Amino acid sequence: MLPRKSLFELPDGMIYLDGNSLGPLARSVPGRLDQMLRDEWGAHLIKGWNLDDWMGQPARLGDRVGRLIGAPEASVVLGDTLSVKVFQALAAGLQMRPDRKVILSDTGNFPTDLYMAEGLIKQLDRGHALKLETPEDIAEAITAEVAVVMLTQVDYRTGRMHDMQSISERAAEVGAVMIWDLAHSAGAVPVDLTASGCEFAVGCTYKYLNGGPGAPAFIYVRPDLIEQIDPALSGWLGHAEPFAFEHQYRPAQGIERMRVGTPSVLQMTALEAALDAWDGVDMAELRDASIALSEQFIMQVEARCPELTLASPRDPLRRGSQVSFAFDEGYAAMQALIARDVIGDFRAPNIMRFGFTPLYLDADDVTRAADILADIMTTGSWDQPQFKTRSRVT
Amino acid sequence: MLPRKSLFELPDGMIYLDGNSLGPLARSVPGRLDQMLRDEWGAHLIKGWNLDDWMGQPARLGDRVGRLIGAPEASVVLGDTLSVKVFQALAAGLQMRPDRKVILSDTGNFPTDLYMAEGLIKQLDRGHALKLETPEDIAEAITAEVAVVMLTQVDYRTGRMHDMQSISERAAEVGAVMIWDLAHSAGAVPVDLTASGCEFAVGCTYKYLNGGPGAPAFIYVRPDLIEQIDPALSGWLGHAEPFAFEHQYRPAQGIERMRVGTPSVLQMTALEAALDAWDGVDMAELRDASIALSEQFIMQVEARCPELTLASPRDPLRRGSQVSFAFDEGYAAMQALIARDVIGDFRAPNIMRFGFTPLYLDADDVTRAADILADIMTTGSWDQPQFKTRSRVT
Repeated sequence: MLPRKSLFELPDGMIYLDGNSLGPLARSVPGRLDQMLRDEWGAHLIKGWNLDDWMGQPARLGDRVGRLIGAPEASVVLGDTLSVKVFQALAAGLQMRPDRKVILSDTGNFPTDLYMAEGLIKQLDRGHALKLETPEDIAEAITAEVAVVMLTQVDYRTGRMHDMQSISERAAEVGAVMIWDLAHSAGAVPVDLTASGCEFAVGCTYKYLNGGPGAPAFIYVRPDLIEQIDPALSGWLGHAEPFAFEHQYRPAQGIERMRVGTPSVLQMTALEAALDAWDGVDMAELRDASIALSEQFIMQVEARCPELTLASPRDPLRRGSQVSFAFDEGYAAMQALIARDVIGDFRAPNIMRFGFTPLYLDADDVTRAADILADIMTTGSWDQPQFKTRSRVT
Repeated sequence: MLPRKSLFELPDGMIYLDGNSLGPLARSVPGRLDQMLRDEWGAHLIKGWNLDDWMGQPARLGDRVGRLIGAPEASVVLGDTLSVKVFQALAAGLQMRPDRKVILSDTGNFPTDLYMAEGLIKQLDRGHALKLETPEDIAEAITAEVAVVMLTQVDYRTGRMHDMQSISERAAEVGAVMIWDLAHSAGAVPVDLTASGCEFAVGCTYKYLNGGPGAPAFIYVRPDLIEQIDPALSGWLGHAEPFAFEHQYRPAQGIERMRVGTPSVLQMTALEAALDAWDGVDMAELRDASIALSEQFIMQVEARCPELTLASPRDPLRRGSQVSFAFDEGYAAMQALIARDVIGDFRAPNIMRFGFTPLYLDADDVTRAADILADIMTTGSWDQPQFKTRSRVT
């Protein structure tokens, strides 16, 4: 499978351990996008919707992403942002369980998922509640009063990974609808949505799938359920016949009904080119490579940086494709690392986060990153004013 | 002001009368986007959010679009699709009038606006109703039972234009919230949102503003209202402190609270470059040029094509920047025109639609288009099987 490093544009000397936040530019993207601009939009203008099948992109890309997450053909569609797709899945899940009032999630979920739930609950104003448990206690909290369980499989802070199979089965046992957010899973770990039996999954494509900043989100609906779903955001491109311009909404057949408005063709085109790097990748093999890299990093860092405490599960089978260390001065230490071209990121209050992406990272990169981190920690060179000023985004 | 035709990539020999559906590629876009890909995403990766201020794009572009629609600084933000922005405006409007149950629109509104209203009503399940009147009767239908009036200023089929000022005033008189959809207005006709007093406006940027397929939508909120709005789609980038990763939603100050998820940076960058073509454009002057072109087209077509019936208002002050003709075989006639590189579009059941965009169209183009249309009509060359097969998008 590997190495595929040559498929990516990586700045000389940079060791990029932040593909779990924003993947790098695949070399195929600029040329493909330039061609789309000039030969499709520029040359065909409005005719591009037909000639270049821009209209078919959301479903076509859905199938390509679907293959990486164990979803059958025509069960995944691309569009909007992850927040919007979370909203659609949640609204559909609550529709399916009108007599239950609890949305259950965990305290490790990414905030936007919780905010969207909060907004939906307020809007519905029907006595729903968002209940948060710690990740460790979530399985037991899945009871028959729960309408929807909404979890991000891999915790954005710690990398701790839920067991998708057993939690999905637990939800099914008590009749709760299961929504998985795969933001840190798609392209990071093997996922088998079909086997899990979950009702919905959502995710983004700008992390491990390298679609670029603002790349579209995706939504999966279990195929046997799609025809009963009345989409909450009933936009014209989810209509059965968008170009009939009817006054009443009629949902499209199949997963297309989860589309909302005009697709972001430029973003989709960049993603389409970036996905070429995934052709022929075996997810089990990728997972082995990812575990080898993260185990190596933990070993090298723990041997030389006693100030850092592993914040990720020690068992590699219980974490995704990232490793986090807690350190009270983690913000400054991460800035010092970034200044030396080792790019990870910081998550408040004290998490230094490192992503492992075997498509473009190898053991030498990991050794160099650990060496530089050890140097920063042993010399205390992070302890300088310029590393302590907080910027808006890290 | 004009000509600015040289700023656009227009295929040789093509006369493009569909800028009201998808604007052409501005010459500045490919270079700017390539630079963004290589020098921002490619070189800076995650740091681009800060270094290249991707995070500030939605508000920065909001100000640029705002200048074209009479909106003050910091009252417009870009993001998502028009459907999603319609949903946000509608939900906020209904929140503001909890005791009223009617959303009023007209039968000429673009379907997605109606579908989003229908979906929101179903979701709220509180007895709201969507009431449709004909465009001609809309003013009288604005009564004290109406919670929200939602209108597209310029009718996508006929080009008929509502009087924004008098309708907004009528809504204000009876205490209804006014939402204007400016899809066919922004960059087409002078708009003064501040003077209108309306509460909300939404629109897209891929038509007259030439942002490209999938370019982001925009939303305007009257500045005195924004702090009381509890956004329906409460995503993390509308949070007061997105990077504090709090468990509870707290809306950002000002228009930023109408943001939802991660901005589509590639689309925004293309739009940003395309908007350069609008620098220094006087909207009154542009409007004069647009009227001159459309008047010329109507005169030339009516003189030679008696089969076609003007479907747009004859008074240029009552139409936007497009002209429509009704013809029972309009689909085939439009295909015949397109085959001769005059690009307009067809809207069911019988509308041939032509957009006038003075940034890149002049009187010679209009004469040539009218000549070719007259030739097709007088020779009956549209009456051929290849022009009658319907494709998915027109």
